[in-house]
Amino acid sequence: MKALGIGLIGTGYMGKCHALAWNAVAPVFGDVLRPRLAVLAEASEALAERKAQELGFERSTGDWRSLVSDPTVDVVSITTPNAFHPDMAIAALEAGKHVWCEKPMATRLVDAERMLAAARASGRVAVLGYNYIQNPIIRLIRRILEEGQIGEVNHVRLEMDEDFMANPEDLFYWKSEASSGHGALDDFGVHPLSLVWTLLGGVKRVCGHMAKPYADRPAREGGRRDVETCDIATVLMELENGASGVMALNRSAWGRKGRIVLQLFGSKGTVAYDQERMNEVQLYTAEGERETQGFRTILAGPQHAPYDTFIPAPGHGLGFNDLKIIECRELMRRIAGEGAHLIDFEDGIRIERTVDAMAKSAHEGRWVEVYSG
Amino acid sequence: MKALGIGLIGTGYMGKCHALAWNAVAPVFGDVLRPRLAVLAEASEALAERKAQELGFERSTGDWRSLVSDPTVDVVSITTPNAFHPDMAIAALEAGKHVWCEKPMATRLVDAERMLAAARASGRVAVLGYNYIQNPIIRLIRRILEEGQIGEVNHVRLEMDEDFMANPEDLFYWKSEASSGHGALDDFGVHPLSLVWTLLGGVKRVCGHMAKPYADRPAREGGRRDVETCDIATVLMELENGASGVMALNRSAWGRKGRIVLQLFGSKGTVAYDQERMNEVQLYTAEGERETQGFRTILAGPQHAPYDTFIPAPGHGLGFNDLKIIECRELMRRIAGEGAHLIDFEDGIRIERTVDAMAKSAHEGRWVEVYSG
Amino acid sequence: MKALGIGLIGTGYMGKCHALAWNAVAPVFGDVLRPRLAVLAEASEALAERKAQELGFERSTGDWRSLVSDPTVDVVSITTPNAFHPDMAIAALEAGKHVWCEKPMATRLVDAERMLAAARASGRVAVLGYNYIQNPIIRLIRRILEEGQIGEVNHVRLEMDEDFMANPEDLFYWKSEASSGHGALDDFGVHPLSLVWTLLGGVKRVCGHMAKPYADRPAREGGRRDVETCDIATVLMELENGASGVMALNRSAWGRKGRIVLQLFGSKGTVAYDQERMNEVQLYTAEGERETQGFRTILAGPQHAPYDTFIPAPGHGLGFNDLKIIECRELMRRIAGEGAHLIDFEDGIRIERTVDAMAKSAHEGRWVEVYSG
Amino acid sequence: MKALGIGLIGTGYMGKCHALAWNAVAPVFGDVLRPRLAVLAEASEALAERKAQELGFERSTGDWRSLVSDPTVDVVSITTPNAFHPDMAIAALEAGKHVWCEKPMATRLVDAERMLAAARASGRVAVLGYNYIQNPIIRLIRRILEEGQIGEVNHVRLEMDEDFMANPEDLFYWKSEASSGHGALDDFGVHPLSLVWTLLGGVKRVCGHMAKPYADRPAREGGRRDVETCDIATVLMELENGASGVMALNRSAWGRKGRIVLQLFGSKGTVAYDQERMNEVQLYTAEGERETQGFRTILAGPQHAPYDTFIPAPGHGLGFNDLKIIECRELMRRIAGEGAHLIDFEDGIRIERTVDAMAKSAHEGRWVEVYSG
Repeated sequence: MKALGIGLIGTGYMGKCHALAWNAVAPVFGDVLRPRLAVLAEASEALAERKAQELGFERSTGDWRSLVSDPTVDVVSITTPNAFHPDMAIAALEAGKHVWCEKPMATRLVDAERMLAAARASGRVAVLGYNYIQNPIIRLIRRILEEGQIGEVNHVRLEMDEDFMANPEDLFYWKSEASSGHGALDDFGVHPLSLVWTLLGGVKRVCGHMAKPYADRPAREGGRRDVETCDIATVLMELENGASGVMALNRSAWGRKGRIVLQLFGSKGTVAYDQERMNEVQLYTAEGERETQGFRTILAGPQHAPYDTFIPAPGHGLGFNDLKIIECRELMRRIAGEGAHLIDFEDGIRIERTVDAMAKSAHEGRWVEVYSG
Repeated sequence: MKALGIGLIGTGYMGKCHALAWNAVAPVFGDVLRPRLAVLAEASEALAERKAQELGFERSTGDWRSLVSDPTVDVVSITTPNAFHPDMAIAALEAGKHVWCEKPMATRLVDAERMLAAARASGRVAVLGYNYIQNPIIRLIRRILEEGQIGEVNHVRLEMDEDFMANPEDLFYWKSEASSGHGALDDFGVHPLSLVWTLLGGVKRVCGHMAKPYADRPAREGGRRDVETCDIATVLMELENGASGVMALNRSAWGRKGRIVLQLFGSKGTVAYDQERMNEVQLYTAEGERETQGFRTILAGPQHAPYDTFIPAPGHGLGFNDLKIIECRELMRRIAGEGAHLIDFEDGIRIERTVDAMAKSAHEGRWVEVYSG
Repeated sequence: MKALGIGLIGTGYMGKCHALAWNAVAPVFGDVLRPRLAVLAEASEALAERKAQELGFERSTGDWRSLVSDPTVDVVSITTPNAFHPDMAIAALEAGKHVWCEKPMATRLVDAERMLAAARASGRVAVLGYNYIQNPIIRLIRRILEEGQIGEVNHVRLEMDEDFMANPEDLFYWKSEASSGHGALDDFGVHPLSLVWTLLGGVKRVCGHMAKPYADRPAREGGRRDVETCDIATVLMELENGASGVMALNRSAWGRKGRIVLQLFGSKGTVAYDQERMNEVQLYTAEGERETQGFRTILAGPQHAPYDTFIPAPGHGLGFNDLKIIECRELMRRIAGEGAHLIDFEDGIRIERTVDAMAKSAHEGRWVEVYSG
Repeated sequence: MKALGIGLIGTGYMGKCHALAWNAVAPVFGDVLRPRLAVLAEASEALAERKAQELGFERSTGDWRSLVSDPTVDVVSITTPNAFHPDMAIAALEAGKHVWCEKPMATRLVDAERMLAAARASGRVAVLGYNYIQNPIIRLIRRILEEGQIGEVNHVRLEMDEDFMANPEDLFYWKSEASSGHGALDDFGVHPLSLVWTLLGGVKRVCGHMAKPYADRPAREGGRRDVETCDIATVLMELENGASGVMALNRSAWGRKGRIVLQLFGSKGTVAYDQERMNEVQLYTAEGERETQGFRTILAGPQHAPYDTFIPAPGHGLGFNDLKIIECRELMRRIAGEGAHLIDFEDGIRIERTVDAMAKSAHEGRWVEVYSG
């Protein structure tokens, strides 16, 4: 067996996160051949060279096209801004590489559809970096649902909130430009929807609403500039499984830092999760005597694989970056032809079509069906 | 000055709660003349007599009409099932009594409008039993908003959940019959909306959705019977102040017992409240150094009037029934012509019109404007 | 059956709390004859008269001795400063009255022993106002222990903290004078110890330590004055049941308002309680599959008697004052010769001897046995 | 500048944790030369070879002595059972290597003293693996204290609890043998004491107590065997800064998984921390208006260095293993002659002497002074 050759495009936060995962996947899991960190691409040769040294890559290049055609590269990590994903992913797939692309697939749904077509044509593994689903606690929730511990899920609530856009006096920047997308809806929506997809499946119909908390912001060049995107979005949903749902997103939510809240109500119990306390989940089951029923706070531990590969003792806590290492291991499994827990391009397009329907619905002020392909 | 004469109709939970309040208002507040508990009415003479003794009323009657015309009665507490409110309230107002009626006003909006007309015609005090707004913590939130501590509120999230309908194998009962109303929407909706009304004002447009978690339930007479009401409701909102809002209601939410969650996002901070921990509020303000910003858990204490009239030490906790005592004191203030913090029939009709618009919206699958009178 | 005649001495916070309880006990419980609020005594005739009107008492007096000998009085509520308890309680018992005395019994153990002797001699009911033990949640904990749900309790941790002495620049007042007692140890210690007594029984050996966070405080008359009491106390314990224990008390604990924390570790589970969230308890039992074990947050509800007599719905919350109403009902049960859940003078002396041993231990810097009578 | 050559002895959990840190330190921090993972030693050649491949080491050996004398090794990571620490650390120091040794230094204080002497004689860097102190949240607490945000700390409470010994029916194993040490006292005590040392300094006097929750356990060979160690320990303390303290340790605490609780009470505020929620700290300061004072929950974010080197967004969460990467970076700083935040042998001996005094105190049932060297 030969070590996988890795090419990494982009070294922003997610690029670093991929690099950390490729460095750590063998020491953490032990049962996998250490990948060979072959080539790193960045916008300039100089930056690429410096980052290759930091991140442990053998070679570097200022030309991502040379990376995707490099014969020593088997897998391409794509971590550049979303607008670059389509060209890079399609080129890599056409060059016969496996692709590990950060989410969302593209800024326009039409490009995402092209990426999916390329993946289908290539027969290669093409997966997206939806790392929240890799949390052992999310896997536990999935098992709880599969085993029917909370019965049939009939109602879902989703929230995602951060506060990086909360200050109305922060300078106008690209996230307030229409070219960046709709706002919170596409910036945040894919994250909670990836959890829904993993846990419950697809969304059937949606009715969205978007709002601007601040009409304008100070412009760098002086004066104020109109905000073109909506930092707040709310959506009513009907899921394919028949459950009703509601989602609220706010990137100007003072005090919320990395909040992704999930509440799943079932016929026998309830699950509640908050990403800000990612090593915990709340579970209520209508079992036993009524006097002592209550929400249980379950702390992540080695009984929740693959927590055990990181730490043998419970309650010690995984971190956000650890999720990428788990995702990396799943990707390697998929490449090896084994079953793996991932959101690939086939699944990812479903999520992006859902966001697209939400945006359409919000613009038209009515319920819209999600295109199911 | 003469003590107020009190008439109480109904001795279910809310009747008892009113009686406890009338008994306690003078000892708790000290600055008010002890009311005279004059007459209690119940469905039968026997029950009325027994309850009068328990609850400390001088006389009893099996005929509520004799109570509302009793010359020793100044104020009528109406705590019967909602369908009886209109006749009783209108009769009492026409007899020149002040009315303290449990919410909602009526089961049909048209009856509520008639009640409002009677109140206007009478010139008497006519208030509703929206006790959650009396919580000193809710008053604190109002002060926080009024002082601009969290700036302009631009987004609101409301949740109300209990689990008394959560078991799909519980016997079908009247709350699943269409005659009882829409379901969670009107059963629960008025509660969070009373908080919104108190804190932020009216709602302008709504888009609702209702869902049945269980299609049928076991019938008392054997077999199963179709459920006609919706235990789940979700609503998108635009408030009159321009804020976007979302509300989710679920009376089949396993594990939620008396949850009413309120999240208010503003331009300078955030407030979060949960009725299940009614002596606490979470406040985040974007002040001071960033390193130590965080949500503050504020515990109710004597600095939050009128907590101090109950307990001189902080952190000891008021109970749900205490809120009714505060409401009672506010009612006495209103009767005395003083400023009071209450939801009267004028305000209450606004809340009920909002629920009505939500129901219409849900049935028609589109946005609906709230009638503002 | 005749209504009990009530005499109340003192109308500070605890006096008001007793009065509220006597007013509410019949309406809340329904199964008990409404007591007759006969006489109220205060330091002056004028104050007594005013308070009698507020609190609903028929007559008033400026002489507590006339109250304890009043033939219409069956039960005497004693809520004056602790130094007055012995004379009043002994006089009342000698006059054949039942006594409901606030804790602690006395400022000196020798006086408490005299009170016990008087109670024994009188044959009357003599109970102490340990209301925290009346919390339905504490009763639930007792049931959990009795049923062995957490097995044998082998380790106990107690904390009690408030912050009314936390500001070193607050003026020196009587709680810093040696004449007021040791400090946190006797001011707070009886509260957590009452819970231990109720739940687990007596304490066998103790080793205490006391500390002054602030050496002096500003004096009213100018300058600074040495603090003579210890606002902090810590104690190691061995319980009679063999468990090890530790207690920490701090009345200068910034941010703690009414915190009384109890952690009970057993061979099959753990219970954790915090008085600041008095309607909740945390329970962990080592049952079921390991993957979903966790601390359950149990919310008080009607299944936890006598919560149901206050509110028929769960999760709505009792308040601190409600505990006194429950205590009042228990007292009435005891007077009627029924089983009741109370700390009487027999039990109370055990708690005060324990505090006494702790103080001795702290002063002598060694382990001390608790005198068990 | 030359890359540091690393030798690793031991590949249990802590060995793997060191290896992960050596792999990740350069990619995470970016400002440091990637270390060269030179040699790995394990009990057998075969195991060493397999682990070297997994963990990314160039060479392997079954003889740790050859590792410590290897000229390509600059730093030796010692992660073997505690009993082996003294020989390995002393040999490495004598061979001129820097040493990174897991805590505690040794099973006997006398050996720890020998290690300290060797470190002093060598002039090399000799540090201990107290990773909890590396948490950015703990550094934040230190800054809060240094800036006087909570004034003078006058009272400290420490708890550490896990439940791996909680089941009385688990088979007897070496942690119940006297040869393993005292029990919870030395197994756990060093962890909270390392936090105290970092934040507040040394301990002056102690009075300890130890308890066995279970007298015996099932023996592997059948029957039951007496337990020789104490799974519970409690200690009263006086700190060198004058604060009073209390510590409670329990390794049979059902439901506690990785709980290390720290409560620091000061003259202006309070800090509370729980390792089970290691990305949060609670801070109360007596500032601003009283109505809105409360404990703030501060979430770790990039403003708390070096969180930012891992993740640029707040609230995403570091994991336990990340602390070792930070510790590794600090070690590299120390080796480079820069200021570093570490517990070295000089500090570590103070912690171990404190534990030793606690054990002596518990055995003799009296207060004992900590030897301060």
